Formats: sequence, C-alpha cells, structure tokens
Amino acid sequence: MALDASPAFPRSIARTQALVRPALHEAVRTLHPWQAEIASYAFGWAGDEGGRTGSGGKGLRPALVVLCAQGVGVPAATAVPAAVAVELVHAFSLIHDDIIDGDERRRHRETVWKVYGVGPALLAGDGLLALAMRTLAMAPGSERATRHLSAALMEIVHGQTDDVLFEERAWTGGEAVSVEEYAGMAGGKSGALFACAAALGAVLGGVRPAVVDRLTEMGRHLGIALQIVDDLLGLWGEQEVMGKPVLSDLRRRKKTLPVVAALAAPGAPARRLAGLLDDAPREGGQEALRAAARLIEEAGGRGLAERQADERVEAALRIADEVLERSVAADLRAYAAYLVRRDR
Amino acid sequence: MALDASPAFPRSIARTQALVRPALHEAVRTLHPWQAEIASYAFGWAGDEGGRTGSGGKGLRPALVVLCAQGVGVPAATAVPAAVAVELVHAFSLIHDDIIDGDERRRHRETVWKVYGVGPALLAGDGLLALAMRTLAMAPGSERATRHLSAALMEIVHGQTDDVLFEERAWTGGEAVSVEEYAGMAGGKSGALFACAAALGAVLGGVRPAVVDRLTEMGRHLGIALQIVDDLLGLWGEQEVMGKPVLSDLRRRKKTLPVVAALAAPGAPARRLAGLLDDAPREGGQEALRAAARLIEEAGGRGLAERQADERVEAALRIADEVLERSVAADLRAYAAYLVRRDR
Repeated sequence: MALDASPAFPRSIARTQALVRPALHEAVRTLHPWQAEIASYAFGWAGDEGGRTGSGGKGLRPALVVLCAQGVGVPAATAVPAAVAVELVHAFSLIHDDIIDGDERRRHRETVWKVYGVGPALLAGDGLLALAMRTLAMAPGSERATRHLSAALMEIVHGQTDDVLFEERAWTGGEAVSVEEYAGMAGGKSGALFACAAALGAVLGGVRPAVVDRLTEMGRHLGIALQIVDDLLGLWGEQEVMGKPVLSDLRRRKKTLPVVAALAAPGAPARRLAGLLDDAPREGGQEALRAAARLIEEAGGRGLAERQADERVEAALRIADEVLERSVAADLRAYAAYLVRRDR
Repeated sequence: MALDASPAFPRSIARTQALVRPALHEAVRTLHPWQAEIASYAFGWAGDEGGRTGSGGKGLRPALVVLCAQGVGVPAATAVPAAVAVELVHAFSLIHDDIIDGDERRRHRETVWKVYGVGPALLAGDGLLALAMRTLAMAPGSERATRHLSAALMEIVHGQTDDVLFEERAWTGGEAVSVEEYAGMAGGKSGALFACAAALGAVLGGVRPAVVDRLTEMGRHLGIALQIVDDLLGLWGEQEVMGKPVLSDLRRRKKTLPVVAALAAPGAPARRLAGLLDDAPREGGQEALRAAARLIEEAGGRGLAERQADERVEAALRIADEVLERSVAADLRAYAAYLVRRDR
C-alpha cells in the first residue's frame, strides 16, 4: 500500500513531497555514486534484493518546513533547500541510529548497515549529513539558517546520547529515568529536528526571530508527540504496520515514556512491573515482554503517554492558530492529526 | 616525549596551539558530558586505563588555518573559530575512519571505538562534526566559510568512499587502481581538509576569492604530501614512532601510492610483487608483507612516492611565496618541512 494513497494522508504532505522530491533527488546525485546508491536504498527509491522499494518515509519533516514557511508568508520555493536539508539530516540520523541500536529492520526492509555493512553505512550517513549542510549553506542568505541547523544537530546528538545512556540505567531506584528526563531526551532526539523543520524555511525567508521562536516551539511539541506515539507503537503497535519488531524497545531497556511513567506510578501494577523488569534477563522471552506491556497499561503508563501526546499536539495547534495564516493552520491541523495516528 | 619539545617542532605550530587550544576546550565543554569525555580521550587530554594521556595530534591543521590567515593580513583571532572547526572535523573523521577500517591503535593508544564501543564512538564523531559546524556558523560573517567547510566535507567523504572501494579492487589487471585515481582519492580524503584549512581563516576574514583559491590549492598540495608520507611510514616507518602497526595498510589491501606506483612500473620486481600480492591471503604473514615492501622499493614505488611528496611541498611553497607575507611564508616553509618529516 502506497502511503500516499491513504485517504487520511494529508494533501498538504503530498503537495510538498511533489515540490521537495526533485530537489532531494538532485542533491543525492551530487554524492559519490556508491553513496548515492546507498542513499537511494535508504530513501526507498531503489529496491532491495527482493526488488522491494520502500515508502521512503512519509516526508513529514520537509512537509513541516514548507507548510510553516508558507504559513508565515515565505514562498515555498524559498523553503525548499531547508526542506531538503532537514530530510537529509533525518536520513543521516536513521542510518546512524540503526547502527548504534543494532536494529536490523526499518520500513519493512533490512536496515542500511545490514545490507551494506557497518563501515559503508556509517560513511553514507556522514555523506548525507555533509550534503545537508552543503544544500542549506548554498541557499541565499543561509547564515542564520545554518546556525539553526547546527544547533539542532547538537541537540539531536545530545538526545541520542541520553537515549543510549538511559538504556544502561536501572529501571527502578535512584538510577531510574524520570518523566522529566524522558522529556529532555525526546526533546533533543526527536523534538530538535521537528523544531528546526518548523522554523528553517521561515529563517531562510528572513522572518523575524520572535515568530521563528514560536515556530520552533511548535515543531518541538510535534516532534515529541511523534516520539511518544512511536513509543506507544513500539509496545502496542502491529508489527505488520510498523515494519519492524514490536517490543524491541522494551527488550533493549529503552526508557520510553509509557514504561517510565508506569514505573513512577503508585500501586500494585507498577510494583509488579518493576519486579518483572528487574528480574527479566536482557534476552527475556516475548511472553515476559507482553506481560510487561500489559502491566505498563494497568499502571497507567499507556494512558499518560497518550494524554501527553495529545497535549503536545494541542499546544502545537494553539501556536499554529496564533502565528500561521488561517488556511495553513487548517492544513497543520490535518498534518498533526496524521502525525499522531495510532494506527500508522 | 612531548612533541612540542622537539627542536624540529616549528615554533609557529606551538604558537597557534596556544591560541587555538583554549577555544577548542571551550567548544568541547558545550557537548553532552559523556561526549565531552570521549572527545577528551580522542584529543589525548584524558588518560586511558593506564593513565596515559596522548599527544592529541600535532595541531597541524589549525596551525595552517592561523598561519595562512595571518599571511594574508587576517588577524589570528578572526581565524580561531575556523581553526577550531577544522580540528573538530579532523577528530570526527579519525574516529569514524577507525571504525570503518577496524583499526585498534592510534597515537600509541587504543582507538575510540575500541575503548567505548562502536555505537558511542560513532555518536561521538557525529557530535564533533555537529560542533564543528556550530562553531564555524556562530562566527561573524560565516556564510562563505560554511560553504567552504561543507564542500570540504563532501570531498572528504567522497575520498573516504573511494578509499574503502579501492580496498576491494584487485591489485592488477583492469581493476587496478591507477596513480591518477590515487591522487583523486588522496586529494579528497586528506587534501580537502588541508585545502579548507589553508583557506578558511582567510574566508572568515573576507579575503577575496582569487587569493582564497590559491590558498586552497596550496593546502591541497600539503594534504596530499602528508598522505603520501603516511603511506610511506605505513610501509617503512618504525612502529614505535607511529603508534600503530606497520604494514597494516598492505594487509588491508589499501591502495597506497608506493604500491600503486610499483605495480604500474615495468620490470621484474613489479611482476614479482604482483604475483606475491595476488597470491597472498588477506591474513598473510608479516614476512610476506615485508617481502612485498622490499619489492615495492625495488620496483621504484618508494622513490616515486617520495618524489611526489617533495613535488607537492615545492608546489605549495611556490604558492606560499606568491601569496603570503614574507615572514609567514618562512614559517610555512618550516611547517611544510615538519609536515613531511620521514622520521615522525
């Protein structure tokens, strides 16, 4: 099923895809041919050994770049280099994350390192990051935009580093990761690129800082909402829809919001969950993981995470209504609804 | 032995180190604490398990940034963010290269991935690259400089990719790597960052493009010269001086200039070398590798590489005499002599 064909797929995303994809292809063609090949696989343009091309991601971030730019009066064409840069950074970070996490599946296919090896995948990620910088730097009046993107990159790596370190921490006791720590990590790892995406087209268009700051805040809410939904799908999603194994976050001791919130809750389910997770060996069976997912829900972790995702979206939409032109604010409402669909 | 204490260590490098290091430390302090710790190990500021700190590299690239800037009338202080950015890119690329090549030793210590693991090392490299971009982007009037640095990054990754692909190619026949292909690869992998270093301080100082182009060309010659010297040391250097295993390039089928040139030469030694390398298993014994090194020398590969390194330095010095203030051109002469010292 092509995602674009889904009725709930917002027209605004399809529209920006048509605008951004040619520029993205053009940028990728400037890479070393082997790097371009690996990038084409990563974007889902080239098939795997079975000839399966991929959805290539949903283009959520470039769509946000263009939408927000248009919403504050910047022409879409001005925002295109920003959209391409943001999508390239996203591709870079997925490729490197999959190496770091040892993940073998993404978007229903093998991950880049699994197909090409760790070294080439690492290098392909570096190439995409260099290309992102290059694309943005070559845009007219890019100084401010480059500052934004480089700051976002620092935050992304910071959040990623926390995410990796959190895996090593105990589920409970003094080492336990708090809901606040989770928010800081997700705000960097997932929030920073959305924050940057929401602002970057406007920055290229010379929009004043006060508005850019609001867009940044809006984007961060959306990025964190998306992360929370991914956390939820990682526990209660359907493998067929997700394209990667369910419950692997829990197996890898990822400190996702539902589990962090559940463990912080009072009551018997939280205590039973703590006992189960503390006792579970790292390679615990799927049945133990399913039991843990049930206890997370009983302890209220699922509900809290769902509420937080909704609150983030509402906060983002309040800002959208405040700063974006009315028709674009409506587009953003459809965009946000799609972003946090629980049946993705 | 502290490198700075060596009589042949040019005063100009020591001077620029004193200028750049505090800014480099300050930049590293803005990283995630764990990333800063890994970076401190990579720079040799923090000790390994045996308490051994490192030389932290020789600061060759930041010295070139500052020297060249001063040589065209740009104050050293203006060039410092460029020097820091270039040194951070260098550190990023070493950490990632060591992962890609599986190298376990560098500068007499274990490599970063060997100490911290592949994931954290990869992430630390990403963090240093983000920091490099950030440092340069925050400098006043950074637009042009960011374009230069991002172009250099593209070239570095391009050259690295060739370097990796060259390993897979046969020593002889239609697949053989030519001396010209070597020059293209080295011009990217090692030449691009030196080219950028020579130009970047001048660019930040607003020097006109014609002069910047000459500096770029000069830097590229120096970078390729350094790569050739590293190739030579990899075959005939002393392990104790180099801080990593000798002959590992050959074992890994790296297409270094001496071997590429030797195989392209006419005569019996070249033919015997081809036979030896084609037959040698990947994990061939040290004795076979030593025999190969002798044949490379007999076939003229060592002589050709040494001549090419000298020619690159002479070409660089001609440009230096043409574009740099006289006293700085003299400093650059001492710098270049140190750069290509065969007993490093």
